[in-house]
Amino acid sequence: MMNNFSNYAKEYIHLNDEEISLMLSVATEKKVRRKDMLLQAGEICRHKIFILGGMLRLFRTREDGSEHNMYFAPEHHWMTEPESLGNGTPTLYDIEALEDTHMLLWAKRDFVSLSVAIPKLKIYSENIIARNLAMTRERVFNTMSATVEERYEDFVRSYPDIFNRIPLHMVASYLGVSLKTLTRVRHAQVKR
Amino acid sequence: MMNNFSNYAKEYIHLNDEEISLMLSVATEKKVRRKDMLLQAGEICRHKIFILGGMLRLFRTREDGSEHNMYFAPEHHWMTEPESLGNGTPTLYDIEALEDTHMLLWAKRDFVSLSVAIPKLKIYSENIIARNLAMTRERVFNTMSATVEERYEDFVRSYPDIFNRIPLHMVASYLGVSLKTLTRVRHAQVKR
Repeated sequence: MMNNFSNYAKEYIHLNDEEISLMLSVATEKKVRRKDMLLQAGEICRHKIFILGGMLRLFRTREDGSEHNMYFAPEHHWMTEPESLGNGTPTLYDIEALEDTHMLLWAKRDFVSLSVAIPKLKIYSENIIARNLAMTRERVFNTMSATVEERYEDFVRSYPDIFNRIPLHMVASYLGVSLKTLTRVRHAQVKR
Repeated sequence: MMNNFSNYAKEYIHLNDEEISLMLSVATEKKVRRKDMLLQAGEICRHKIFILGGMLRLFRTREDGSEHNMYFAPEHHWMTEPESLGNGTPTLYDIEALEDTHMLLWAKRDFVSLSVAIPKLKIYSENIIARNLAMTRERVFNTMSATVEERYEDFVRSYPDIFNRIPLHMVASYLGVSLKTLTRVRHAQVKR
């Protein structure tokens, strides 16, 4: 499993063996079960997480108790709540395991030190937040411009490997539509 | 005007005089007129911009030619298109001056070098992207959960100093509502 991270770090962050060892030397390995919570609204997010296997979700709960899914992170993706992490302020979000999940965690202070020691990591980590911002802006744009059909297709494109692993009601909550509407859209697509 | 940046960098990034001089030594000063374009869809974003005076907007044009405003940056705010800047890929967005604007620009390579030399700047710049991501997630959440009234109030809270400087049809395009709907909402609020 740990080779997962080494291979990822070589291929995507272009780190050498020494840099990977340095990263692993301050990482904490953690396994959680499906439905375990890793962060709850009101707490302060203190880690960056790399997912070795499984899947996490970031969501926010409305005043009426319903949930809005914001982001799904399967294996070889990162998870954190960057605003709370950056400012040390209480988060509005929850992070929950959607499947049994195996991960690496870095404390904020350690990740900052690593980013100073390894400039490639600094650039890469800023790129990940930038990509998240771009995806989220795309969602704002689509929510205001596109049909539910187009938004579902965009979701499938954004999450090609995992959209079948996410319960349908959670996809609906990500898209901001009812389960009934989403079911209708999917049926119509199968028929085409 | 340049004192604007020094004061900002001291207060918000906690830089000392030497670090500020280092930043200014590789910055380019630029003045543009209202309606000048700084970035157009299809181009590659190559700078981080700090606004000394005036205001820029980031927007995206739909296939039907209508515009969707994504972000407004007045004096003492930053502007860039982080995905295009980070990956060197063509942007989907335009950046235009909403007012005559006076700014400082840093080329990507110089800003990366500065971030390595000044770790506080690296942390701060990641925080700004994180705050933008948080604001954009808030917009996704609000678009799916809140009424137009609540979304307008949220906009006024997000941009307390500048919402009166932004033309109403651009506020409507930011909120994804018609000008008519926004006018009705504002009249109702004045009456309360």
